[in-house]
Amino acid sequence: MPSKRILIAQGGGPTAVINQSLVGAVLAARQCPSVEIVYGARHGVRGIIQQDLLNLSLETEVNLEAVAHTPSSALGSTRDKPDEPYCQKIMQVLKAHEISHFFYIGGNDSSDTVRIVAEQSKAAGHALSAVHIPKTIDNDLMGNDHTPGFPSAAKFVAQAFAGADLDNRALPGVYVAVVMGRHAGFLTAASAAARVEEDDGPHLIYLPERSFSIETFLMDVKRVMGRLGRCVIAVSEGVHDASGEPIMAKLMAQRQGSAETDAHGNVQLSGSGALADLLCDEIKAKLGLKRVRGDTFGYLQRSFLGCVSDVDAREAREVGAFAVQWALSQSSQGPVTGSVAIERVGAYRTQLKIQPLEAVAAKTKVMSECFIHSHGNDVTPEFLDYLRPLLGSSFPVASRLRSPAIERKSLG
Amino acid sequence: MPSKRILIAQGGGPTAVINQSLVGAVLAARQCPSVEIVYGARHGVRGIIQQDLLNLSLETEVNLEAVAHTPSSALGSTRDKPDEPYCQKIMQVLKAHEISHFFYIGGNDSSDTVRIVAEQSKAAGHALSAVHIPKTIDNDLMGNDHTPGFPSAAKFVAQAFAGADLDNRALPGVYVAVVMGRHAGFLTAASAAARVEEDDGPHLIYLPERSFSIETFLMDVKRVMGRLGRCVIAVSEGVHDASGEPIMAKLMAQRQGSAETDAHGNVQLSGSGALADLLCDEIKAKLGLKRVRGDTFGYLQRSFLGCVSDVDAREAREVGAFAVQWALSQSSQGPVTGSVAIERVGAYRTQLKIQPLEAVAAKTKVMSECFIHSHGNDVTPEFLDYLRPLLGSSFPVASRLRSPAIERKSLG
Repeated sequence: MPSKRILIAQGGGPTAVINQSLVGAVLAARQCPSVEIVYGARHGVRGIIQQDLLNLSLETEVNLEAVAHTPSSALGSTRDKPDEPYCQKIMQVLKAHEISHFFYIGGNDSSDTVRIVAEQSKAAGHALSAVHIPKTIDNDLMGNDHTPGFPSAAKFVAQAFAGADLDNRALPGVYVAVVMGRHAGFLTAASAAARVEEDDGPHLIYLPERSFSIETFLMDVKRVMGRLGRCVIAVSEGVHDASGEPIMAKLMAQRQGSAETDAHGNVQLSGSGALADLLCDEIKAKLGLKRVRGDTFGYLQRSFLGCVSDVDAREAREVGAFAVQWALSQSSQGPVTGSVAIERVGAYRTQLKIQPLEAVAAKTKVMSECFIHSHGNDVTPEFLDYLRPLLGSSFPVASRLRSPAIERKSLG
Repeated sequence: MPSKRILIAQGGGPTAVINQSLVGAVLAARQCPSVEIVYGARHGVRGIIQQDLLNLSLETEVNLEAVAHTPSSALGSTRDKPDEPYCQKIMQVLKAHEISHFFYIGGNDSSDTVRIVAEQSKAAGHALSAVHIPKTIDNDLMGNDHTPGFPSAAKFVAQAFAGADLDNRALPGVYVAVVMGRHAGFLTAASAAARVEEDDGPHLIYLPERSFSIETFLMDVKRVMGRLGRCVIAVSEGVHDASGEPIMAKLMAQRQGSAETDAHGNVQLSGSGALADLLCDEIKAKLGLKRVRGDTFGYLQRSFLGCVSDVDAREAREVGAFAVQWALSQSSQGPVTGSVAIERVGAYRTQLKIQPLEAVAAKTKVMSECFIHSHGNDVTPEFLDYLRPLLGSSFPVASRLRSPAIERKSLG
């Protein structure tokens, strides 16, 4: 049996548990006697083409375990989306270092990179097994019940809204918070996970799976304010109107004449507090309300140190280990490719499988119809049933005073 | 001994542990045989004048303990700052209900309210003991080593920056996050608490205790970018120029002609992402950098469910209990007034004392000179020595890979 040389990299946005997958893969590879060395590429595919490579065979297990419990991508990440020439360079480096197995932990762009590199290796006659290990807080990978990274981000969002709702109960007003998710609303929907009593917020939830109308939004807020005297609102950064135009672009254009765009011509939705602020301004101006506050959860929701779902951590570890065990066990049949996916069994266990790279590469899963309230401004009990097992065993619970009122006295 | 009637209320911004102080006070009062009833006022002083009062004697201890572990003010809070006529109304209600002891958990405005109500009761011949119980995430109360609520908010800010720094290490660029604190920089300074290695962020910290110059700020950012290729920045919402003008107002005025102000004519610093976004725009425009992201921690830093320093929780409980035990033990001498304060003993224990209301009422403590780096853009080791014992026993630690690099190969 020829000796195996493994390379692992991390791509796309960091998560709270992406290092669990890295460590799961490294330890599984090191357990296999035919594995000669385990490489890590710094900053994803960019580290491969730059030959910025580490020898992960020389990490102690103690340190690997410590890294596994650290959020964000320990190897570094990249936003590079390799085209064919870029993938050619990747392939050349893998070939020069005689890499037999390439594992890329990432989202749907990363799985597409794995697919192209695998095809080019085959064409060039380099025997390379190439496997995609899923991660994304967006929870938008096809063929997966859910994706590692999402449950911990969902736990953060749920705990943040639970706290914001308690704050808003103490000092009533309108509170709008914007949550990450350009196309898929799962993370914004998670804002509802800590609700217990009927008047718990968020009272309104807006997802990119539905068109957003500013007029309907304002009527919704007015109705909740009339009923409760306060209103907590979760809005996905990706909300857009019926024509697909992002609401942030629309509100900015109304104000300034045009919205700021990035190098690709996309409106920059993340890394700014603009959408929350613009929605707050609309509420103040059109509904005449005074105490209106906006937050944008920003980078905290994916990288906060110390908010991890234990279920997520375990699953992220396992998808990394499973990818390596599966690929190494198949090697007698020549190079293999695939993407690890999580299936749900009952309520609640998981089972891992391998799906073809084509099934997940560059595709986006959005929320099922049955998860979205018919009014388009809330989630359904089905969604909460889906979400709750993912949040793990240490989800805090808020409690209220239940004291009876004291009778008023005449002040004479 | 005449029977005692206690009233407790919560004022100002919620904290993660303000309910610990409430429960500490309630349980201490209920343990005293001469206490007939324990009232709670809903929404602070506003609940008193509206006679929106609860009978806290009828809460179970189990539920009180659950409430103690819940962030935000369980009784509700208020931003009302009572003037003399308002305090007259408070006093009338306390008199009508024969309240003998009034405890108000809050910041420096709340302590001023306690002071005025106590004076008016004395003038009206109503025997009232009135005690202020400290809380504020701003840590700005005179005579206190630190204030309950600050350590948990500091823990949140430190964990948020630790995570954001790891994220920025994975995907390098500039990251600016704005932290609460209009006059005192303690909470912004806490951003440094999780730093371990020399290149850990935040690399720059700007406090309201120092004048902020946009030019110096940009030079600082440029220098850090040159050294590390990335830069994480903590900015207090209250940063201002040498004339005292808030930087947010200044940057907004440059753009729009004038800044938005609230009903009191103050620029609204909280509840908006504007300062972070404006600083990011400056960095992009003046330094020509591309990946520049801004976050505003907003309400999460004071009310996030599930981020509490155990030291803070214990101390918050104790200041509540101590206030009641002290006031009840003094009653034979007639009505008493005072404000509980925390003193530090060695490294690290605390001792509680009572200071006169005048010492704390409507005053603001800011950071000592020795806590601020001479360049005005960082904190000192003295500050970190001061802060670290407050963060409690469950502060998470981040770890890094330490693998050696793999030698480059010629790609032939």
